Amino acid sequence: MLTPNLSYANLKDSYLFYHIAQKTGAWLNEHPGARLYRMGIGDVSLPLAPAVIAALHAAADDQSVKERFHGYMPECGAPFLRETIAGYYGKRNVSLSPDEVFVSSGASDELGDLLDLFDRSNRALIIEPAYPAYVDANIMAGREIVHLPSGPDNHFLPLPRPGIEADLIYLCSPNNPTGAVFNREQLAAWVSWANARGAVILFDAAYEAFIEEDLPHSIFEIPGAETCAIEICSLSKTAGFTGTRLGYTVIPKALERGGLSLNAMWVRNRTTKTNGISYILQRAGAAVFTDEGQKQIHANIRIYKENARVLMAALDEAGIRYWGGKNAPYIWMECPGGMGSWEFFDRLLNEIQVVGTPGEGFGACGEGFFRFSTFGDPADTREAASRLTALLRKI
Amino acid sequence: MLTPNLSYANLKDSYLFYHIAQKTGAWLNEHPGARLYRMGIGDVSLPLAPAVIAALHAAADDQSVKERFHGYMPECGAPFLRETIAGYYGKRNVSLSPDEVFVSSGASDELGDLLDLFDRSNRALIIEPAYPAYVDANIMAGREIVHLPSGPDNHFLPLPRPGIEADLIYLCSPNNPTGAVFNREQLAAWVSWANARGAVILFDAAYEAFIEEDLPHSIFEIPGAETCAIEICSLSKTAGFTGTRLGYTVIPKALERGGLSLNAMWVRNRTTKTNGISYILQRAGAAVFTDEGQKQIHANIRIYKENARVLMAALDEAGIRYWGGKNAPYIWMECPGGMGSWEFFDRLLNEIQVVGTPGEGFGACGEGFFRFSTFGDPADTREAASRLTALLRKI
Repeated sequence: MLTPNLSYANLKDSYLFYHIAQKTGAWLNEHPGARLYRMGIGDVSLPLAPAVIAALHAAADDQSVKERFHGYMPECGAPFLRETIAGYYGKRNVSLSPDEVFVSSGASDELGDLLDLFDRSNRALIIEPAYPAYVDANIMAGREIVHLPSGPDNHFLPLPRPGIEADLIYLCSPNNPTGAVFNREQLAAWVSWANARGAVILFDAAYEAFIEEDLPHSIFEIPGAETCAIEICSLSKTAGFTGTRLGYTVIPKALERGGLSLNAMWVRNRTTKTNGISYILQRAGAAVFTDEGQKQIHANIRIYKENARVLMAALDEAGIRYWGGKNAPYIWMECPGGMGSWEFFDRLLNEIQVVGTPGEGFGACGEGFFRFSTFGDPADTREAASRLTALLRKI
Repeated sequence: MLTPNLSYANLKDSYLFYHIAQKTGAWLNEHPGARLYRMGIGDVSLPLAPAVIAALHAAADDQSVKERFHGYMPECGAPFLRETIAGYYGKRNVSLSPDEVFVSSGASDELGDLLDLFDRSNRALIIEPAYPAYVDANIMAGREIVHLPSGPDNHFLPLPRPGIEADLIYLCSPNNPTGAVFNREQLAAWVSWANARGAVILFDAAYEAFIEEDLPHSIFEIPGAETCAIEICSLSKTAGFTGTRLGYTVIPKALERGGLSLNAMWVRNRTTKTNGISYILQRAGAAVFTDEGQKQIHANIRIYKENARVLMAALDEAGIRYWGGKNAPYIWMECPGGMGSWEFFDRLLNEIQVVGTPGEGFGACGEGFFRFSTFGDPADTREAASRLTALLRKI
């Protein structure tokens, strides 16, 4: 008799964004034809950059003729893209060999798959509020989770302290949902903590392209990270690939645990469990890193940053505390008047038709906070900000 | 201290196709400029069908304009593609609801990921010779593997017999590497065995499009399969998607174990561990199932079948026993003169520059057999067949 993975029964019933979709769906059913201003799920609204579109067409043409047709791709990534990404790190003086870079279908896929490298006896430390999948993927694997709450006191950037013991730790910087970004000294404290304990840091750098101040984009800017960290990155937000799918992961060759090289284990995993990433998507990904591609994606990022500015101005006017927005595409605000985060969600939905994300969905310590994504349509964002200003005056 | 997944240490050192690549690479280094006739790894040689290319271009254009841009796709697959695939099954009188169909990045990815649904205490039954990843993925998960050897006595199609006990069973039909195909009665015996024990069948249907006789394309053509089977399929061989990547998986809603719905568990897995499959690739996949797409991919399949005919004629002339070739894209031959399969590999490489796959790589009982893929270039295949005829005359 087959035994299913019973850890699934320990998962909470519904997933944050699914729950939001249900609530907004119900509202739209009751108000046919009405329109919503969506600043909830962090999906992008701008189309792919022209350099990427050109690369997609060229790659499709390659697949149409025998002489340029590409079958199975190398499981760990096409050499042209692994080299390009290693070069991108090189510009920040992070020296990587191309075979320390793995091409992936995106950060969410990779964050799930990578856990196969670790025994289920490991304890996973998750700084909350957090992306819900960090928690759920570890529950599915039957791992013990150590929750480390953060809050305004530490600017949502907690540091290691005596008594925190874990084998795996997730660091997301710039952070989803709080928009907080660790500085060099703070990251160095976590690197030193991990090296001292033999722990491994899973560093989620999905929002690095939004950093504008002098803050680390990569954990590998911190000396010593090469013996304790894996970095997971994505083109979803950097280049609008949420529906196109491509990401990359860095596993240094110097990273070993229990006498095993995690880089070599991941090569074995990929060669066994995948047949590589689509040639067409890898060509599209490479176009992002050309001079032209970089110029174009940063023009889009500037549009999202203008959205952030508009929303921050509304909150400033209302005298509301918030984090993020500057070096990150998320704004994390305190709910007004001590309101609960789902109560604030309902008021925004019902009274001004703005959809955001309740902080409680990112962990218990997120209660009383609320996340806005800055990836929306600029005109929608301006309208939402103006409605928000009006509502906050009333509350 | 992090404990790595120590099961990786139980894997054999090198993977079959990696080993072949090393041997052929070494030969090419010694013979610069020489050419090889590759009939080893089952990669396709014909470009994508025009209907697929047109869909790729149209989807890339969609991604270039805000009004038609697609961000995050539904995690379990785009409704348009889930419905299309359910319709494809409907033509063979297999009635599926679209939410029993999951879109995947391909069969190899899915065969690895799906194992997350099962406890590691389950024993996995693998009919050998087998695709090496079935074995390796279960070793990585620390599962006990029950090996069921097959051979000429049962035409490489073993049936359940007293004493065979397992919780998970892999059935690949048409088979890689032997090309053998289960008939309805044989599949019904496995379905009845699985239902009686509460086991789950993982049915790998990656080569179904090559069936020309009246044999089942899907396990769901067998009554009772909906309570014991998951089917994994791929467009890699059907439509030349080896380097483009797309597949699909069927998990019936009637399939439950330990009180849990495996369909609901997979929805939870996908919504947690992925953000869906590329919009562009899903549009390309949908084009395969249009009337035009079907006509075009079957024209390609006929070319591969002509390759099979040419190779089978060479073996017939030499009086060598083989299986497959007719309803499958693989030909599984007995090595001549009682030769070992790696010895035969070396002779083909060194004497006639033809690359095939040694049967031993698919499990111990594959020793003495050899696999040819029929996906090669037609002119190359004709040349390889003529060289093979000459060599077999000498042996």
